[in-house]
Amino acid sequence: MAHIPLPEGLPGILGPLAFRPEMTKPLYEFMEVLMRSENSLSRGERELIATYVSSLNDCFFCQEAHGATAQYYLTCDLETIDSIKADFQSVAIPDKLKALLSIAASVQKGGKNVSKEEVERARNLGATDFEIHDTVLIAAAFCMFNRYVDGLDTWAPPEREFYTKRAAQRAEEGYTNFNPRN
Amino acid sequence: MAHIPLPEGLPGILGPLAFRPEMTKPLYEFMEVLMRSENSLSRGERELIATYVSSLNDCFFCQEAHGATAQYYLTCDLETIDSIKADFQSVAIPDKLKALLSIAASVQKGGKNVSKEEVERARNLGATDFEIHDTVLIAAAFCMFNRYVDGLDTWAPPEREFYTKRAAQRAEEGYTNFNPRN
Repeated sequence: MAHIPLPEGLPGILGPLAFRPEMTKPLYEFMEVLMRSENSLSRGERELIATYVSSLNDCFFCQEAHGATAQYYLTCDLETIDSIKADFQSVAIPDKLKALLSIAASVQKGGKNVSKEEVERARNLGATDFEIHDTVLIAAAFCMFNRYVDGLDTWAPPEREFYTKRAAQRAEEGYTNFNPRN
Repeated sequence: MAHIPLPEGLPGILGPLAFRPEMTKPLYEFMEVLMRSENSLSRGERELIATYVSSLNDCFFCQEAHGATAQYYLTCDLETIDSIKADFQSVAIPDKLKALLSIAASVQKGGKNVSKEEVERARNLGATDFEIHDTVLIAAAFCMFNRYVDGLDTWAPPEREFYTKRAAQRAEEGYTNFNPRN
């Protein structure tokens, strides 16, 4: 049971947001801009950064929910997402994305862990200031969402199919328009 | 110099938000609801939780800016805020608030560090589910804001008077209505 009584049947962050609906609108609007609006980082890349940070924070719900969305956008399989979480350096993804994942990992440890050298490396591999900014903010945001979800000890379905089955619909609906009961 | 070029003269989070203004509206709306809307936790108590978490994350800008706001609302001196940051258990504040600060400290380490026992202790001291929820979310949110501010290596004025001088005006204006250049 979660640390506070939450509405039944709503996994992960959906329980707390239903408990405190005033928070839903600004948080979903934030997610919509951060994760889905016009950006030189694709939606798949942004969901991948979110998934990776959530795995570093050991947040089951967030890494499965966003991992399934990343898989959907990137049209890859779940094994690829798992390999990236386990050791992104060994996976065939663009070097720029690796440099951004490295920055995200530093943000997860704490903001001061981001070094001038790793920012410079990302820039040398083609990352723009905008992309560096958004990587830092996505990583920081999931340090919030992960703590919100686990800090209240929320419930999450253990079957991975629960998340992959819903990924397409979630990706279509976005963050501001979806029905949490679907 | 910050990790990316930011507008000059805007300390802490204000630089990144000016660089990426699309993020400002949802984040300020979130802060307005979380930190200032109707709540059995006073604005001062909420700012104190934010300050304490920011000190645990060693984020100078956030702990000074929110510490000054907490001091303003709580009508105490800066030494009291500093004592609470250093060792809140030794300061004469309500036991319920101490129990909530303890939950906030666990959230800062990571969501899974919040124990059933410390939630129960807070509840036994009078904390409501709503207050426990908001404490977790405030602590989680400042794990984001602190990482955003320090992950981009933003500039902050070192003089504490900079923050205390602006606290009254900030508190009057709230988060959605203020002019960052004032």
